[in-house]
Amino acid sequence: MPMPRSITDVIDRVNNGLLSGWHDLLGSEPHVAGTPGDERVIERIERAFEQMGLEVRRHEFWALLPRPLSAVLQILSPEPRDLILQESPLDDDRFTRHPALDPGWNAFSGSGEATGPVVYANYGRREDFERLASLGVSVRGRIVIARYGGNYRGFKAKFAQEAGAAGLVIYTDPADGGYTRGLVYPEGGYANETCIERGSLLTLPYVGDALTPFVEATREAPRLDVSAVGLCTIPVQPIGYGAALEIMKRMSGSAVAEHATTRSWQGGLPVPYRFTGGETLRVRIKVEQDREVRRSANVIGLLKGAVEPDRMVVVGCHHDAWGFGASDPLAGTITLMEAARVIAEASAGGRAPRRTIAFCAWGAEEFGIIGSTEWVEGHRDMLSSEAVAYLNLDMAAMGVEFGASSGPSIRRVIARTAADVRQARDPSRSVLEAWMARSKDAGDPGMPAFGDLGGGSDHVAFWCHVGVASAGLGAGGSLGTSYHSIYDTLEWYRRVVGNDYEPAAMITRMAAGTALRLADEPVAPIEPHAAVASFRRHLRDISARGASAGLWEAPSVATSGSPDPLGPVAEPLAGIDDDARETESVVRRAVLPWLGSEAALGEPERIDRTGRLLATDRAWVAPGGLPDRPWFRNTFAAPDRDSGYAAWMLPLLRAAVENKDAEEARSALAVYGGVMRSLREVVEVPGE
Amino acid sequence: MPMPRSITDVIDRVNNGLLSGWHDLLGSEPHVAGTPGDERVIERIERAFEQMGLEVRRHEFWALLPRPLSAVLQILSPEPRDLILQESPLDDDRFTRHPALDPGWNAFSGSGEATGPVVYANYGRREDFERLASLGVSVRGRIVIARYGGNYRGFKAKFAQEAGAAGLVIYTDPADGGYTRGLVYPEGGYANETCIERGSLLTLPYVGDALTPFVEATREAPRLDVSAVGLCTIPVQPIGYGAALEIMKRMSGSAVAEHATTRSWQGGLPVPYRFTGGETLRVRIKVEQDREVRRSANVIGLLKGAVEPDRMVVVGCHHDAWGFGASDPLAGTITLMEAARVIAEASAGGRAPRRTIAFCAWGAEEFGIIGSTEWVEGHRDMLSSEAVAYLNLDMAAMGVEFGASSGPSIRRVIARTAADVRQARDPSRSVLEAWMARSKDAGDPGMPAFGDLGGGSDHVAFWCHVGVASAGLGAGGSLGTSYHSIYDTLEWYRRVVGNDYEPAAMITRMAAGTALRLADEPVAPIEPHAAVASFRRHLRDISARGASAGLWEAPSVATSGSPDPLGPVAEPLAGIDDDARETESVVRRAVLPWLGSEAALGEPERIDRTGRLLATDRAWVAPGGLPDRPWFRNTFAAPDRDSGYAAWMLPLLRAAVENKDAEEARSALAVYGGVMRSLREVVEVPGE
Repeated sequence: MPMPRSITDVIDRVNNGLLSGWHDLLGSEPHVAGTPGDERVIERIERAFEQMGLEVRRHEFWALLPRPLSAVLQILSPEPRDLILQESPLDDDRFTRHPALDPGWNAFSGSGEATGPVVYANYGRREDFERLASLGVSVRGRIVIARYGGNYRGFKAKFAQEAGAAGLVIYTDPADGGYTRGLVYPEGGYANETCIERGSLLTLPYVGDALTPFVEATREAPRLDVSAVGLCTIPVQPIGYGAALEIMKRMSGSAVAEHATTRSWQGGLPVPYRFTGGETLRVRIKVEQDREVRRSANVIGLLKGAVEPDRMVVVGCHHDAWGFGASDPLAGTITLMEAARVIAEASAGGRAPRRTIAFCAWGAEEFGIIGSTEWVEGHRDMLSSEAVAYLNLDMAAMGVEFGASSGPSIRRVIARTAADVRQARDPSRSVLEAWMARSKDAGDPGMPAFGDLGGGSDHVAFWCHVGVASAGLGAGGSLGTSYHSIYDTLEWYRRVVGNDYEPAAMITRMAAGTALRLADEPVAPIEPHAAVASFRRHLRDISARGASAGLWEAPSVATSGSPDPLGPVAEPLAGIDDDARETESVVRRAVLPWLGSEAALGEPERIDRTGRLLATDRAWVAPGGLPDRPWFRNTFAAPDRDSGYAAWMLPLLRAAVENKDAEEARSALAVYGGVMRSLREVVEVPGE
Repeated sequence: MPMPRSITDVIDRVNNGLLSGWHDLLGSEPHVAGTPGDERVIERIERAFEQMGLEVRRHEFWALLPRPLSAVLQILSPEPRDLILQESPLDDDRFTRHPALDPGWNAFSGSGEATGPVVYANYGRREDFERLASLGVSVRGRIVIARYGGNYRGFKAKFAQEAGAAGLVIYTDPADGGYTRGLVYPEGGYANETCIERGSLLTLPYVGDALTPFVEATREAPRLDVSAVGLCTIPVQPIGYGAALEIMKRMSGSAVAEHATTRSWQGGLPVPYRFTGGETLRVRIKVEQDREVRRSANVIGLLKGAVEPDRMVVVGCHHDAWGFGASDPLAGTITLMEAARVIAEASAGGRAPRRTIAFCAWGAEEFGIIGSTEWVEGHRDMLSSEAVAYLNLDMAAMGVEFGASSGPSIRRVIARTAADVRQARDPSRSVLEAWMARSKDAGDPGMPAFGDLGGGSDHVAFWCHVGVASAGLGAGGSLGTSYHSIYDTLEWYRRVVGNDYEPAAMITRMAAGTALRLADEPVAPIEPHAAVASFRRHLRDISARGASAGLWEAPSVATSGSPDPLGPVAEPLAGIDDDARETESVVRRAVLPWLGSEAALGEPERIDRTGRLLATDRAWVAPGGLPDRPWFRNTFAAPDRDSGYAAWMLPLLRAAVENKDAEEARSALAVYGGVMRSLREVVEVPGE
């Protein structure tokens, strides 16, 4: 039996110079999904994985990947003026002069033309459009101008279209990403007046290819008709704040800052923001995009497990970008490459980890989390029975302040690894020490504060569709943003995040260390009691939310044995909390002795405890999915229905609260009761 | 005996058309204290008071009243540029073209010239200069640029000078008063880019004429040497945000928004704010002012009391302005004039109120609360024995949202009057109902929330020097500010506050009604128990402040009989609280039957209860004044030592906390123990 790899063995192999090299390899030309640059990046990753000795699989998919054809944004009156739809190239950053860079565009905009007066809609959130309506401001037939932030941009377009807008302009406000926040590029890292955030507008009740929900987007897959999918139909154009100012300064009408409920709508442009532009100001928007099915690919590098080769830990990050993508995604992709390299190197000579690790560079994430979703849909049964966990590294190395959003069952293994890794640029402390100095878990002061995992990146299919324990690792805190702009270059990254690749080295160590523990510990470190404890915490939160919505009484009242004054929910709410407390106690007692026993390594196991622990996260999967969103099957967490990026915890119950439907809440609680029963069965090991 | 006037009798006489007429009379030319326009306004007020039948006294004083001679502000490098030091005249507002308007200036600036690099100091508060020092940014020899807001402007100059700055530029930030807040003048009411806030820089340990502390500034009064007073020596120049942008956009160096502790230093100009301007940017400031003693005057209109003519209720507002002063002060002065008129009219035919009411139009408030202070210093003994209360109306009618800052003993009479007056522009409600709908007293939900009276206007000498119960009445909520600029015109007021004079009518009713109750109720409605209750509340606040400063333990610990772990303060702190509780109970029991008995009106009184109640507020006067500020003698309240406008409550104790001196706190508590004894003596009426 060869010697086991220790965590130190991989941590020590991480090489900052190679991280910089991966960055040069993948970030030297624009590589939008479905373009020739994308194809070349895919080939570079294939060759790199091959050179590491990984078993490489190119996983091709054929997805709806639009391309911009043309766009015009003009002020027609009071006097005609064309607005600029492309960033200024910079002498200080030669990358910004690359001929293959696209102008600013939002993929999945409608194609067409609209002319009309202007309405400002703040962040274009549901509540912003509701506020406009309550103030008597109609957006029907108008060109809406909204700022980035506050939600996923696709919802801005969806809400604008639903409200009857003729077109939508989205801009980056200086208060959110420009001079109000700090020095602008190239002097500093923040958005200058021409900087444009690109991005997809898809808001379907599933992620992945728009035409092939539930099934892998192979070349021959049955496809929905594109007209039946419900894509955005109005033209949508993103711009920088210099162009936005040209519109905003010509608006008339009352000022948002002068209404008590809309004071926060004022941004950082040097004009009073107004609700309406008046009749004199007329704007024309014209957007043309194709809607073609194009080929792209994921690249999977497999390191086969030595003992349980069917079991799989998946580590991933997408490779496609809106331009060079030095930050998004490559600040994560380079840590994926280096983590694969160090683990492969440490595994040489027959020292592979116990379980298989799959290193996955996903394609077409930017268009709608497509590559990872298609792979998951194509491997759903395998993943459901064999996947230990998924670690996502999208844009991971953006600073020195480490953080993680994670399902509860694998938080402790991440924290344990953070105790073993040195803090970037401050080696006197561990990552864990620095992390906990910033924020501790409110319920468990021995743990750092984790975020809840919602939508927005390649974990979604793993976590929300199949119920694989997932986490997103990353580090931030650098001063600036070039998000989805042509300024997201190696030059920007090295000026703003730094040229020392210390953040990337830290993330690589965290990812490699965590993956190795998940793949190599005798029993995979998955904690069902942590999931139940987390369930109880979210139950309390949502119970308070239901109380303030008037659905039931406050949690302190809804205890066992109390009367049930507000209908059918208070008693089951108390019952599920009792049930969960009991479940937590049972599984904690059973599982703790299984975990972390290094001594057990290599001994043949009589019982497949790891297999049992995988049920911790799969227990939450409802085959029929969530109401109105059947593709989202994880009843523990889902993306926020109305904002996209954030998480809805216990979404069955949350949807009932949002719908103000006590009967639906009661049904949801019954489902969670079933989950508790399943979790207790996890630990009822026959023969023990 | 003639019939008594009811409150309704004066309320119903208030005439909106006459309020507008007072505005025209006093606001049609610039009238800076000490100028010919000032003299003409004084004469107009004299004539008006005479026509009302009041006994008119012109009270002249000779005070240090500087005049601007010249000023220059230039960017010298990278390329020379003169900055504009005067507002733009507007076609929409003919007043702004008046030839007698001064350019922007700060009275009591040093005269002289300075050239140097630039440092930005946020609001120029003590903590801002401390922050700069802690970040290693020296202001020595530099031109400091600071924004208005956060403190009295004089402290900006004082702290800048103490830190070694060579000059100071103060500007109005758009985030504080410009386009970030709403539409700008003349389209809206907020500051346009040329709008300049003028104002005095005096920060002496007394108010009033700088050369005659404690004594009336008669022509022959002994005067301090101007060089011995400690006036500002560096040149100080106020500018608009257009000019400020010319400086700020040329600054280099690091951005305030990129430091965690100075993020809020970023304002609303469209550039990243920076700490320093670098060596290339050099600015020259040159200010020349004379420092002459000039004559101005208060105008006192007396309505002699029918029963207690020596007892005096004082109602006042200043008449001087930095330009036309349509808002500051005339939005208050016109309510003073109309309150005088309606009370005089209702008093005709031998129906004068029981006590004398003095209607006072003060001079030279803007330069340092001079006129009112000199009058008080000249009538100190009379006021100390005879003044019932002082009501201040500075800038009172600026909107429909009524509020009051007041000493505790007269809060209830203000609230009672608010119950009798209809809300401006919403006659279905009383002022009290509208006021309480906005904010209730935290300790007494049956009362509206009052502010604490600090510095900043003509109540200071009454309240802080003599201990006369004082209140400032006013109403705000209009959208805009023309504060101390040449845009403070009748045109601005009528566009922004309104042309209906409903706010002014409401304030007139409140002032006249309150004054009449104070002057005419059988026993003046002064409540010593309210003062003691307020003392106990402030004691708790300051006790918590002392605890967090580590001077003593938290209030819950410092109760009677507990050990005294933190030195000599805990026990006296508990003792004074017990003492105050007892005092409150004793005086409440005794005084409540005295008050509000309309039936007693006209009956001869055996006992001078009003005279006794005047001790309620005089009891707090320490003859030696506060440590380092002997002129401020009220130990109940004083202006904030470091910011000017705000209030320090229980300033003896507060100073001890700020100085972190437990022994000083113990001495302060002994003083307050003496006050409690005096207050109990108030109600020990011999012969009852």
